[in-house]
Amino acid sequence: MSGFGDATAIKQVGEGRYETLLDGGYAIGEALNGGYLMAVLARAAVDASPHAHPVSTATNFHRVAKAGPAELIVEPRKEGRTAAASRVTLVQNDRFVVDALITTATLDDAAEPDWSGEGPPAMPPLEECSGFHAPGGRGFADQVDMRFDRSTMGWLDGQPTGRPEVRGWFRHRDDHAIDAYSLALAVDALPPVALNLGAKGWAPTVELTWHMRAVPAPGWLAVHGTGRLLADGWFDEEVEVWDSADRLVAQCRQLARVPLKPF
Amino acid sequence: MSGFGDATAIKQVGEGRYETLLDGGYAIGEALNGGYLMAVLARAAVDASPHAHPVSTATNFHRVAKAGPAELIVEPRKEGRTAAASRVTLVQNDRFVVDALITTATLDDAAEPDWSGEGPPAMPPLEECSGFHAPGGRGFADQVDMRFDRSTMGWLDGQPTGRPEVRGWFRHRDDHAIDAYSLALAVDALPPVALNLGAKGWAPTVELTWHMRAVPAPGWLAVHGTGRLLADGWFDEEVEVWDSADRLVAQCRQLARVPLKPF
Repeated sequence: MSGFGDATAIKQVGEGRYETLLDGGYAIGEALNGGYLMAVLARAAVDASPHAHPVSTATNFHRVAKAGPAELIVEPRKEGRTAAASRVTLVQNDRFVVDALITTATLDDAAEPDWSGEGPPAMPPLEECSGFHAPGGRGFADQVDMRFDRSTMGWLDGQPTGRPEVRGWFRHRDDHAIDAYSLALAVDALPPVALNLGAKGWAPTVELTWHMRAVPAPGWLAVHGTGRLLADGWFDEEVEVWDSADRLVAQCRQLARVPLKPF
Repeated sequence: MSGFGDATAIKQVGEGRYETLLDGGYAIGEALNGGYLMAVLARAAVDASPHAHPVSTATNFHRVAKAGPAELIVEPRKEGRTAAASRVTLVQNDRFVVDALITTATLDDAAEPDWSGEGPPAMPPLEECSGFHAPGGRGFADQVDMRFDRSTMGWLDGQPTGRPEVRGWFRHRDDHAIDAYSLALAVDALPPVALNLGAKGWAPTVELTWHMRAVPAPGWLAVHGTGRLLADGWFDEEVEVWDSADRLVAQCRQLARVPLKPF
């Protein structure tokens, strides 16, 4: 198994009950990345359903998850011919850490869009993009290879661009082929776009909903983050993920707390 | 109480348990409108929390809800100083009808945006817009006064515009002042924007997440629906709601099944 495959592996231990060993390699600081947790939740939901893909995932993040054992509870709520819905909860040390509503279905990997809006964002080629290691030593950036469009990374040099935009290329550092679970990771992999509005520090996600829109082609993903409104300490971040065939494969919105008043 | 207030009234019958009487006036055909159901769920979540507003609501619609008695179950999952999270379920005839994850918080009604993107859509003035009664007699359009931008209603005359856009003005027909619960109704009040892509019939919502971004000012709301991708029978619909002071008060995305292949 690939590193990402191992890190998201689950083991069924009862009807709708799974165990997992959360991997500290997906931490940013000491908190495990939310996308990584969603990938683990999605594996449990798909395992408990008759369908192949997590097409819709709505998530509430209650507490920080840490490396180590955790439990997953899957409650099936509706099974239809096209889709199945369940409630999925991640429990660690007897506390609810993440709650999700996950709908599974089976997407046709040969489906061509019947209609689509604007194409992918203009991205500089890989060789003109830069990696970035978050402070805190070993962690997320050792698992995920991201190359950022430098024109969206002004915040890193203390010069926020004033536009809530961050764009980058994404792949696993190991040989895990890009799949549905990679998309769960990709939609929450960018630094908070509110950093470009002068926000300080990490912006804790309160709610995040993402939809898988197509089976991704192999290769790099393009990840494009924007936002709409920062008010009263709340900020929305929208992420679109495009595959190497320029198809929209995932879309996401999260609502986060922005800790300090921006400029 | 106003008609909308009565129709969304809940009665606590135990710890985290409420009863309600769902009002057939909010039906489209024989199914109760999803926004109406979300308003009822939000009332229960707010009642069970220390906060005033449903700032984030993620919803799975499992089955059609009908007029008559229903039960609400609220499970508190996390209570913080700024926000509280709960799982809320609507049960009717012993079946799970709607599951939601609802985060409550108290928004400051004097808050000015720290940053906001594009302003509200250009809308024709009210007197140039048209009402529209869905087939099926009495129902939603008798409770909600919507006036549509005719340039987005081509589907109604069998001439879909080819652009997944529907825009309209919104208010209650009764004297209910626009509030958080009105926003729950407004985010799911438009006809499916995929009708303008040639989709036939209603598009059942699978998942809908909406965020309340500000306390709405009194007066008409402007509701702007768009979409991004129609593929493999799935369509996303994005809705933004603006108040009479031109502030973004709610944002929403839903993932729906589009029953027939469009042109």
